[in-house]
Amino acid sequence: MFNDKNSEKFPLNRRQALKWGLVAGVGAVGSALGVEALNRRSSSQVIIPPVQNTLSNAAVANPLAVLRDFDYGTVKQENGRTVREFRVEAHTSPIQLNKSTTFITWNLNGRVPGPTFRATEGDRIRVIFYNRAGHSHSLHFHGVHPPDMDGIKPVRNNTVMIYEFDAEPYGVHLYHCHIAPVTRHVGKGLYGMFIIDPPTPRPPADEMIMIMAGYDTNEDQKNELYAINGLPDYYMNHPIPIQQNQLIRLYILNLIEFDPVVTFHLHANMFKVFRTGRTLEPSEETDVITMGTAERHILEFSFRYPGKFMFHPHQDAIAEAGCMGLFEVVGNDKA
Amino acid sequence: MFNDKNSEKFPLNRRQALKWGLVAGVGAVGSALGVEALNRRSSSQVIIPPVQNTLSNAAVANPLAVLRDFDYGTVKQENGRTVREFRVEAHTSPIQLNKSTTFITWNLNGRVPGPTFRATEGDRIRVIFYNRAGHSHSLHFHGVHPPDMDGIKPVRNNTVMIYEFDAEPYGVHLYHCHIAPVTRHVGKGLYGMFIIDPPTPRPPADEMIMIMAGYDTNEDQKNELYAINGLPDYYMNHPIPIQQNQLIRLYILNLIEFDPVVTFHLHANMFKVFRTGRTLEPSEETDVITMGTAERHILEFSFRYPGKFMFHPHQDAIAEAGCMGLFEVVGNDKA
Amino acid sequence: MFNDKNSEKFPLNRRQALKWGLVAGVGAVGSALGVEALNRRSSSQVIIPPVQNTLSNAAVANPLAVLRDFDYGTVKQENGRTVREFRVEAHTSPIQLNKSTTFITWNLNGRVPGPTFRATEGDRIRVIFYNRAGHSHSLHFHGVHPPDMDGIKPVRNNTVMIYEFDAEPYGVHLYHCHIAPVTRHVGKGLYGMFIIDPPTPRPPADEMIMIMAGYDTNEDQKNELYAINGLPDYYMNHPIPIQQNQLIRLYILNLIEFDPVVTFHLHANMFKVFRTGRTLEPSEETDVITMGTAERHILEFSFRYPGKFMFHPHQDAIAEAGCMGLFEVVGNDKA
Repeated sequence: MFNDKNSEKFPLNRRQALKWGLVAGVGAVGSALGVEALNRRSSSQVIIPPVQNTLSNAAVANPLAVLRDFDYGTVKQENGRTVREFRVEAHTSPIQLNKSTTFITWNLNGRVPGPTFRATEGDRIRVIFYNRAGHSHSLHFHGVHPPDMDGIKPVRNNTVMIYEFDAEPYGVHLYHCHIAPVTRHVGKGLYGMFIIDPPTPRPPADEMIMIMAGYDTNEDQKNELYAINGLPDYYMNHPIPIQQNQLIRLYILNLIEFDPVVTFHLHANMFKVFRTGRTLEPSEETDVITMGTAERHILEFSFRYPGKFMFHPHQDAIAEAGCMGLFEVVGNDKA
Repeated sequence: MFNDKNSEKFPLNRRQALKWGLVAGVGAVGSALGVEALNRRSSSQVIIPPVQNTLSNAAVANPLAVLRDFDYGTVKQENGRTVREFRVEAHTSPIQLNKSTTFITWNLNGRVPGPTFRATEGDRIRVIFYNRAGHSHSLHFHGVHPPDMDGIKPVRNNTVMIYEFDAEPYGVHLYHCHIAPVTRHVGKGLYGMFIIDPPTPRPPADEMIMIMAGYDTNEDQKNELYAINGLPDYYMNHPIPIQQNQLIRLYILNLIEFDPVVTFHLHANMFKVFRTGRTLEPSEETDVITMGTAERHILEFSFRYPGKFMFHPHQDAIAEAGCMGLFEVVGNDKA
Repeated sequence: MFNDKNSEKFPLNRRQALKWGLVAGVGAVGSALGVEALNRRSSSQVIIPPVQNTLSNAAVANPLAVLRDFDYGTVKQENGRTVREFRVEAHTSPIQLNKSTTFITWNLNGRVPGPTFRATEGDRIRVIFYNRAGHSHSLHFHGVHPPDMDGIKPVRNNTVMIYEFDAEPYGVHLYHCHIAPVTRHVGKGLYGMFIIDPPTPRPPADEMIMIMAGYDTNEDQKNELYAINGLPDYYMNHPIPIQQNQLIRLYILNLIEFDPVVTFHLHANMFKVFRTGRTLEPSEETDVITMGTAERHILEFSFRYPGKFMFHPHQDAIAEAGCMGLFEVVGNDKA
């Protein structure tokens, strides 16, 4: 069932010999004071309407919990620089995709998608990856780093790998398991977003993430179901409340395997595009963007009219198989 | 055959109770004087070589009639602003795709694609949609508008819906039926282009539209034939005459369902790209552009040499199944 | 087996009557002095680490030989302008795709991909095409040229066609056989890159080309294997040596038939994108680019860290079927 044929090809990284319990001693403890100021949260200036989450916090796929959840890590100061330490455990656990379909995920920290790591350009990143999923996995990060931090070597079950590198360049990045067949390891849930903020923060906004992914439920190398942030149709049944006339900053990622591209269409509005998040000014305004697998961008927009507005790929077969949702724009008396 | 399963889900819009006969009284009549000046035609400054159209004006699919036909609506002045009123009727009628294939279309005003609505940014748009096609349809417009004008609610057979909103922002937009399965409703012909001109008009040019679409003739969720402006291979057998060294402004839209993207390639030339028509300056020059479903752009070019030049997707299987045509560049003594 | 159904449709070009032996007399001989200065080589300023090529120079598919091989033609001066004369012969010959798969190619000058033609904007291009492949072919160039130079007319076996036109505009172009079915003629190997340098040369860099293509080995209109520069997995087993901290200029082209798009992902780095090579400044920086068939761009990057780094489409099924390779970054003492 599991084709980890690369496992034998690579020598084991010496770090894999480290046990989880030993890892805490690796880095200096550093100061945790003033940490909040280092994290690019701007929620105090932004109105986030109340969200009613019907799912348990323990649910592996929980789109509303994932939506605005950024993991800034444990912040330490080492040798005069900011280090962000993230702890990730790979597990195997089932989720319920719809009334009739259970799916065995491979997941990170008990969630699909995995945590949204977030740092500022120039921070030092330390990801302590403990593989408890039962077979080899890895974390391959997009962005700039040395070859031994590239995450293409298998981390065997019950071993630990520490990925450590500088957060650069600013932009929207991603990470995913790179064990072959990658289509399978990504399709099972081993992926997440990795946001590097620019040194000068972007303007305040209601920030959220959406990761589009597919589920090959019958292992025919095609997707039978699609999801945004883990579950098919969830935001269709549980619209995302947003405030009228307020800037929305959507970090969007296509991690759909097997389909060559996906589009993203926002109803009754236009969005500005910051490609790969690598610019501070937009390069384009549209309401349909086409994204190959692993493409990710920042989309910015605000809604002038209150009410419900759909978003979905304009490939209607994909939309109608679960990749569809609603914003619910809450009226703004100040407007 | 018809899967309008959403029909029962939505409450009827009160406007659907209006009958076609009542609608004429809705708007003030306004002045029809000076209307031409309000429409962004620049044909007086542009040479359009004579076109020989072999098809009847009554033909539902008539690519040469559609090519340069812009519907500016009935222009009225109401409360000091320009209102453009468009009347659209949905019908069901057969077309002949080739010698052996008849196809039942769902169409607007007896044509596939539907009328190319055209306005200037800031105009008020009023689309009076009379559904006479035999089952529920809708018109979903791209662009900015309130949620009740979004066209996702079914308009039942023999009822009328009036869509009214401001024309914004300028650019190349589209409209299409949004009843599920959308793949089917679009594939049967319920789509068209919606151009919003910028307040300061673009430079004079020979303007034309091309909408690439697919025909799933055997209902296998794949396209057996492809067309530009309604008929397979029509412009291949009836080249589009254009003038040498004259600016061509091509409004192009991909509405091919089932295929993830289509490319558009122009032979022996390069074109400038104005993405979604949202800019007055081009962002790119190329001769192959890749477009997801519902992507649309302005392409500008002129031909230096007289003669015949092909255009087609560079996915050759799609091109060779009908999505292919010719420009015939007519020599210019002044050059 | 061969479907050259267009052969009968077009009248023979009078040039096809010319025999290969006669062609040398067509152009003035011109001066060959000072020719090197006319070719945009910058290799003297660039460090290219030694390449160990395991394949014979006679091998039809030889990715390392193709990588940095630019054909500037035979340079002549005629009537005060630079003419570049290229000679191309089409042949039919087998290649070994892997241990179990032999594939009959249609190739140019005994190689797949064909030669990388290179000129400077404003040069005159003369391509003397001798078809010795056994059935009709043609060379269709992208770029600007008159209709009789567009290469859509079949050149019959054992005849010669001379394509002659001005090199314009600067950018990354391509050429390929345009005989129907084009999917087959391209898939068999009749394609290559055509680079037009801007009048002011780009900065010195280690320049190389990569053409991604597919092999439909069982003629089911799908690709079973994929290749970069002719052979599956070759650069995976024979990494491309490049120098640390040195600018790499990669001319990349997607000529994969049957698949709608391909992405290109570079590991552990970002690249700047010069779309279609039509600009001197980049428009975007990313590590994943999505390319429709016949899209081509310049990607610029340099590696800060020594070591091995993968590149491949992020459609993992395509990558794992041969479209994958490695850079080996050689340490730089000067850094």
